[in-house]
Amino acid sequence: MWFMRQAGRSLPEYRALRSRGTMIEACLDPALASEITMQPVRRHGVDAAIFFSDIVVPLALIGIDVEIAAGRGPVFSRPLRTAADIAAAVEIDPALVRERGEAIADAVGRTTAMLAEESEARGEPLPLIGFAGAPFTLAAYLVEGGPSKDHLAARRLIHDDPSAWRALTGWLAEVTGQFLALQVSAGASAAQLFDSWAGALAPDVYRASVLPASAAALRAVRELPLPAVAEGAGIDRIPLIHFGVGTGELLADMASLDIDAIGVDYRVPLDEARRRVGRDLTVQGNLDPALLFAPEPVRTAAVHRVLEAGSAARAHVFNLGHGVPMDADPDAIGDVVRAVHDWRMP
Amino acid sequence: MWFMRQAGRSLPEYRALRSRGTMIEACLDPALASEITMQPVRRHGVDAAIFFSDIVVPLALIGIDVEIAAGRGPVFSRPLRTAADIAAAVEIDPALVRERGEAIADAVGRTTAMLAEESEARGEPLPLIGFAGAPFTLAAYLVEGGPSKDHLAARRLIHDDPSAWRALTGWLAEVTGQFLALQVSAGASAAQLFDSWAGALAPDVYRASVLPASAAALRAVRELPLPAVAEGAGIDRIPLIHFGVGTGELLADMASLDIDAIGVDYRVPLDEARRRVGRDLTVQGNLDPALLFAPEPVRTAAVHRVLEAGSAARAHVFNLGHGVPMDADPDAIGDVVRAVHDWRMP
Repeated sequence: MWFMRQAGRSLPEYRALRSRGTMIEACLDPALASEITMQPVRRHGVDAAIFFSDIVVPLALIGIDVEIAAGRGPVFSRPLRTAADIAAAVEIDPALVRERGEAIADAVGRTTAMLAEESEARGEPLPLIGFAGAPFTLAAYLVEGGPSKDHLAARRLIHDDPSAWRALTGWLAEVTGQFLALQVSAGASAAQLFDSWAGALAPDVYRASVLPASAAALRAVRELPLPAVAEGAGIDRIPLIHFGVGTGELLADMASLDIDAIGVDYRVPLDEARRRVGRDLTVQGNLDPALLFAPEPVRTAAVHRVLEAGSAARAHVFNLGHGVPMDADPDAIGDVVRAVHDWRMP
Repeated sequence: MWFMRQAGRSLPEYRALRSRGTMIEACLDPALASEITMQPVRRHGVDAAIFFSDIVVPLALIGIDVEIAAGRGPVFSRPLRTAADIAAAVEIDPALVRERGEAIADAVGRTTAMLAEESEARGEPLPLIGFAGAPFTLAAYLVEGGPSKDHLAARRLIHDDPSAWRALTGWLAEVTGQFLALQVSAGASAAQLFDSWAGALAPDVYRASVLPASAAALRAVRELPLPAVAEGAGIDRIPLIHFGVGTGELLADMASLDIDAIGVDYRVPLDEARRRVGRDLTVQGNLDPALLFAPEPVRTAAVHRVLEAGSAARAHVFNLGHGVPMDADPDAIGDVVRAVHDWRMP
């Protein structure tokens, strides 16, 4: 079990560390990023760390001007509004992500070292999960210039200029694939590709205009030589997880990718998700984050329902069905961890 | 066929009329609101008018301070942050909506008179569809104080203070039900209840904590004596339509309400929607609004796919699967109207 957005604003120790500097600066500070990654592992006792970073970090690395506005999200000073903007952007060499990604590799290395210590103390493995944004979600931000309610600029571009769209998402697949591969090469032992906003797409549009780029991004990890961490764990591939918000209608398509686990939004019960996935994948999810605000008995009963629904799958990674809300009570999160660890399959 | 948000910013003649004054002022100006309602009927030749108003108008009528910020949405000067805020709000008598709703009744009356003229010229009926927001969506705005990405303040309150939640949504059901009934009494011959943000809810939460208030809102129309317009049309009840964005997981529950048609978001193909609904309801929808930006052949092919999928239902009201985007080209919208009217079931 782990929580999406477990490292972040819900923790007072995070807010203390992040009182100075921008979010991008924090992501590129190896000591800070690794310490923030460890905070929820130490406080909550979750079973995995998720690397503290942001999906736009690879774009920042290759020289695209982006800031992460508090409470809002990534904001680009020069949105890709025209075909010419896109043509200019895709000239940037995606290999720069790895060439300039030393701070990321360093942060991953520091984190895995700290996880190894913690793991020894606990007497159980503690994997680091790397992550990256999927091409559609990155394109949605880049084309809009920032967050939007319905991602219409990107959804429009798909139809308005399919060739610019393919060029952009093909390039983003390489950029974000390099970011994912960089983390795995540096020691992450699993990785999650977030297509946060794919749920804004109709299934046929997703299939034709988005899925191929997601497949290309995942290939960047599959093409790596098998890292020592996988050999050490006796597995023959790096487990890849894929998740998007509100993707109930896309589960079968997302599950057709070369992944090992599918993250399920809180809107779709896990048994129904398994039916839609149609193959025996590991499922991840999916407690409604709003339940973190419920009284303990209500919350724990909901945790048990998720665990029971997940127990029919090949394997179940307990998680929320979306990120930890910034104003969630850390004690409630800790209670959920205990409820999951105490649960025994009936 | 009609389009959600057909009267509005996509039309130059709307932008010309709305150059002065606030949105709420426009909604409460009978000459202006009726003229705006007629604009898409005249320009596009759609088969129905949707009353130009806003879901927060009944709240404005009963004295709650709200403005509609351009490009953002409703903003409340005093959000309902505490149980005491809610307790004070629910003291306001919902009957005030009808007592103070003369401008709305006047606007509806003017619109139906203009529609009657237009209908005579066309030689076919031209109904006016009234509308209101469902209690959850209104509560989401009121509790948050404005628009939000995930409506977490409301989703939190459901679990955090169930009794305040029930009081708030029970009261909102009366307020918005009165607004819907007011429009029907004044001559609207159908009505749509928008639960715009219900798609943010997990199905079990929707069922337990939201559905009962939606049912109560719809009852306000069912309890009216049958209006003359229904008798004139030879029907024994006012057709009620229910729609929400991203409600693929909620269709069966929404369809369990006392409604006549279910609006389907663009993410769920109409044949799959019918399967989930599980009863023989009229379906409404669901062209992806992003297709309005596609080249004509792509757009028309998509229109045909929606019409074919809808043709298996008891009846099909063609619409978009969300509102008209503000920067949609009016000519593309007109093309869609012609493509729908020219289509013949194969």
